[in-house]
Amino acid sequence: MARPKEFAEGDALERALDLFWQHGYQGIGLSELLRGMGIARQSLYDTFGSKRGLFIRAIQHYRDTRLASALALLERERSPTRNVKDVVRFFERLALDKRARGCLVANSLVELGSGDAELHALLRDTLGLLEAGLERALRRAQRAGELSRRRSPRALARALTNALVGMAVTGKLAPGRAAVEDVYAGTLAMLG
Amino acid sequence: MARPKEFAEGDALERALDLFWQHGYQGIGLSELLRGMGIARQSLYDTFGSKRGLFIRAIQHYRDTRLASALALLERERSPTRNVKDVVRFFERLALDKRARGCLVANSLVELGSGDAELHALLRDTLGLLEAGLERALRRAQRAGELSRRRSPRALARALTNALVGMAVTGKLAPGRAAVEDVYAGTLAMLG
Repeated sequence: MARPKEFAEGDALERALDLFWQHGYQGIGLSELLRGMGIARQSLYDTFGSKRGLFIRAIQHYRDTRLASALALLERERSPTRNVKDVVRFFERLALDKRARGCLVANSLVELGSGDAELHALLRDTLGLLEAGLERALRRAQRAGELSRRRSPRALARALTNALVGMAVTGKLAPGRAAVEDVYAGTLAMLG
Repeated sequence: MARPKEFAEGDALERALDLFWQHGYQGIGLSELLRGMGIARQSLYDTFGSKRGLFIRAIQHYRDTRLASALALLERERSPTRNVKDVVRFFERLALDKRARGCLVANSLVELGSGDAELHALLRDTLGLLEAGLERALRRAQRAGELSRRRSPRALARALTNALVGMAVTGKLAPGRAAVEDVYAGTLAMLG
């Protein structure tokens, strides 16, 4: 028989991320978190400090996994405009997900606002990574002659990020595929 | 001395709307609501039935006041495209509001998802009014020769609504005026 397995931090974090994503920060209590993560109260305190500490780690984990996947799409060596389109598709899939969980960062911004300065900064900076990635891709698109030189990559990245955040909310409406496809096409019409 | 004033339902509803907008549905308790509304528990039960009943009335009040103001902009007898731009400006002001409350309907969708079918339908239908108003305005824009006949007014209305909902979330970042102006310009670039 194998030795009792150490408490697997990565697995527990993945489960915590899932729970916060589904229920929001205030929508889930500590007992439910512990049950869902399959760990003891003391382990949570020892490893994450508090429910708030666990939430911060969950947001960072989301950034380093889900958001990182989206950002990686932008860095591929191919048409930068196609890369941008693929990121819009990535968020489109979020909007079509049957669980309608939206984007954890957008959800948390709506739920928590700016009341907790450290959390607010973390959420803002995380969304900032998406905006910065889009801006870099749009600059490459200009150099590749795919985007008019008259457009501002920064301004366009901001407007695209806003629309992607919107998709996270639109997804809560459980829209049909046709509606989401319209949002996709309309959003890309920004690229001119 | 004046006779004791009857409990003014409209005023109480306006205050309830304000409180839900600031704190969310789950973020405010019944006692805080009663204190903020300046009414007794029994009055709330007699008039609104429950906290949930009060919330439904607050969403309807938001629809009949705030959303109605935005929709009225679309019906003015002038350039339909300018009317649409003014609605985008209307949401831009929400995003610039220092209180960063966003849009009550978008917030509530994120907070409540589809768990409560009646609330979800109310929120979806309310956002649907915005989309339908934009679609009508875009059809008029086509008839006035301001929008290409090749664009689908419905598809464009969906993409615009998505971006407007995004502004409600972007506003939570307390973005500067320059960032919001970029989102405004990028969103209108959808109109081609």
